[in-house]
Amino acid sequence: MSAANDRAIDPAVVEHVNDLARRARVASRRLALLTRAQKDAALLRLADAVDAATDAVVEANGVDLGRAREAGVSESLQDRLRLDASRVAAVAQALRDVAGLPDPVGEVVRGSTLANGLQVRQVRVPMGVIGMIYEARPNVTVDAAGLCLKSGNAVLLRGGSAAASSNAALVGALRTSLREQGLPEDAVTLLEQGGRDAARALMTARGLVDLVIPRGGAELIQTVVRESTVPVIETGIGVCHVYVDEAADLEKALAITLNAKTHRPSVCNAAESLLVHRAVASDFLPKALSDLAGAGVRLHVADDVADLAEAAGASFEIASEADFGTEWHGLEMSVAVVDDLDDAIERIDRFGSGHTEAIVTESRTAARRFTAEVDAAAVMVNASTRFTDGGEFGFGAEIGISTQKLHARGPMALPELTTTKWVVEGDGHIR
Amino acid sequence: MSAANDRAIDPAVVEHVNDLARRARVASRRLALLTRAQKDAALLRLADAVDAATDAVVEANGVDLGRAREAGVSESLQDRLRLDASRVAAVAQALRDVAGLPDPVGEVVRGSTLANGLQVRQVRVPMGVIGMIYEARPNVTVDAAGLCLKSGNAVLLRGGSAAASSNAALVGALRTSLREQGLPEDAVTLLEQGGRDAARALMTARGLVDLVIPRGGAELIQTVVRESTVPVIETGIGVCHVYVDEAADLEKALAITLNAKTHRPSVCNAAESLLVHRAVASDFLPKALSDLAGAGVRLHVADDVADLAEAAGASFEIASEADFGTEWHGLEMSVAVVDDLDDAIERIDRFGSGHTEAIVTESRTAARRFTAEVDAAAVMVNASTRFTDGGEFGFGAEIGISTQKLHARGPMALPELTTTKWVVEGDGHIR
Repeated sequence: MSAANDRAIDPAVVEHVNDLARRARVASRRLALLTRAQKDAALLRLADAVDAATDAVVEANGVDLGRAREAGVSESLQDRLRLDASRVAAVAQALRDVAGLPDPVGEVVRGSTLANGLQVRQVRVPMGVIGMIYEARPNVTVDAAGLCLKSGNAVLLRGGSAAASSNAALVGALRTSLREQGLPEDAVTLLEQGGRDAARALMTARGLVDLVIPRGGAELIQTVVRESTVPVIETGIGVCHVYVDEAADLEKALAITLNAKTHRPSVCNAAESLLVHRAVASDFLPKALSDLAGAGVRLHVADDVADLAEAAGASFEIASEADFGTEWHGLEMSVAVVDDLDDAIERIDRFGSGHTEAIVTESRTAARRFTAEVDAAAVMVNASTRFTDGGEFGFGAEIGISTQKLHARGPMALPELTTTKWVVEGDGHIR
Repeated sequence: MSAANDRAIDPAVVEHVNDLARRARVASRRLALLTRAQKDAALLRLADAVDAATDAVVEANGVDLGRAREAGVSESLQDRLRLDASRVAAVAQALRDVAGLPDPVGEVVRGSTLANGLQVRQVRVPMGVIGMIYEARPNVTVDAAGLCLKSGNAVLLRGGSAAASSNAALVGALRTSLREQGLPEDAVTLLEQGGRDAARALMTARGLVDLVIPRGGAELIQTVVRESTVPVIETGIGVCHVYVDEAADLEKALAITLNAKTHRPSVCNAAESLLVHRAVASDFLPKALSDLAGAGVRLHVADDVADLAEAAGASFEIASEADFGTEWHGLEMSVAVVDDLDDAIERIDRFGSGHTEAIVTESRTAARRFTAEVDAAAVMVNASTRFTDGGEFGFGAEIGISTQKLHARGPMALPELTTTKWVVEGDGHIR
């Protein structure tokens, strides 16, 4: 067990977090009974409240940015943290978009009348209280609040300390608006005190919190998975491969490889590793490596790819074993040649994170085997890994991409924030 | 954190369990690709193998029973442990029944063609490797093996030590049959060595085991929930209430109360607590308490019910606070009078385990509120709590009853042993 796990959580922090969770729980009971019309109206007013708070939010964000600059945080992280007026407007608009989505609550998933006349139906209901533990981007704060409200859940938000002022300003605006609407402000609660112990108290508040969703880097997610006693949905670690099969259309393979790596390299559905069948390696790799190098991608190549990387004029190094399992979060990529489809599947099984895996092939047999045998949330045939996304799939919103097998796998939207309840109606039925 | 959690697991046991899990994982890849016809044929041959092993199983069971008698184990526990020829035949028949059930694997849950022409579908696939941690009854061993095989999963079985010989004989017969059929025997593996550390190694084998399902008493389940780093589905703790509303048909209420408590008092969907609206208490309780007493039920009553219990000639005591949250597992029941529906819902929220809660009422308003506001896997209107059961719901089989909200809630059958995979097919699609 981890060293952190052996250290007791500060009891005062536990009591503080449990108290907030209990209040969220009371709020959740009211949220569960709201109609779609009531929830949509509330979301529209919350959006207006965010708009109205633009100046205060931008000012608070300035405090966070100042701290980040002083701490020497990278430009790209500062950019993730930044909220200007147009980004605040986008945050508000996202709430309006959620108002336009169907309400999952109340959906009858299945049902029947049993032989004895009992009427049985399985109905979607809210989870109750959801804990979000996440890092830099303050827009997640409002997105999560909106999605949880729409699905009838109260939410406890534990954002990154880097965005503390921005999050406080945003949640302050949301809570004030909820109160003014006669809705429970404890539907949206920010955990501001208690440091790391607050996050640990949140993930061990069994019976008070129904689900914890971590969003962030591998270390955050592994900590939550290891320490949480509340059920967890893991999100977002993506060590995604593009496998170029011997039967690939090499034009498609080139476009997909470039898109998967370079379209938005910092996100989880970007590709981190390129696998090329030996039979097409000498045709495909010179152009592919040259184009990747031209796009600024640094390569981590297997021994037998080094000469081709050299010839392509790429910036490269010989890959270590660990490199093949690395999520680069940027313009870097590992490259290996594989002997056949089995070899590719075996490597994906070893190094992949179960997020998204792509094959480029014109062979129906290879595609069928790849989709059947690769164990991942999403498998792509002749398409970029970048398509694993709630927006692309038409869900209209996304609270994360689950890489686990329980409850939700792949992009998570509103229905994944609900559970079900069996409702059984009889007329004095006994066994 | 628990004391047990602080003690390291014996590394030799971890290595042993991980080795078995790795072999199960290899087996699971073959199972995932079997057709329904292949799996059903295998199940029928496994059933024949169990039948053929009847003498050996009964003999092995005799060893377990002898140990149990020596240890002074209760008659009812000995009965749960016992396998005679007819019970072995029933175990074999259960495998044939599973062969007759639909195969969840391959079901397309949803799908669409996106605006860009990408064809997206969400398909049911096996979990991979499932760990079962359970207690006395050896029939669970074969039931779990059959359900896991049918759903394409390998299973690691950690049964109770009381049934060690019986489980070894049963799993030996299953593995021999799998091998003779040319199927991987590691599809079904019994963890025989390592004591408690083996169970702990199983629940921390992240990446090798996809899901752990504990079945047994509250202590077992809480230990698994607390220590597991593998995703868990909690099952089976049932502190179920029958609430007799002021608008109840008291005939139905009486029949339901008696059935819910006495039909099979040892199981999780039996009622443990009776709540009666104050307005009907004096009409309902005298007869109800007298009938319960007549059925041999010992009562744990609130102060204001004592006189009625006395008058009914019941065996009773004044209930402690803890009594109202107790799963009796036998002919005992707590009884309280409530002021109104709110009071009933509040008590169920406080003392219930989220399994099954029943209201008896002719009021549409009360039924609607109860089904909406009570937070449980199943809510019953005018029906016995005993109906929360995979068999009763028509699932044909059941691996447990989930009392958690993630993934599965209520009776779990074959579809709940699967996850999904997104399969996305394009023609060179990029973003």
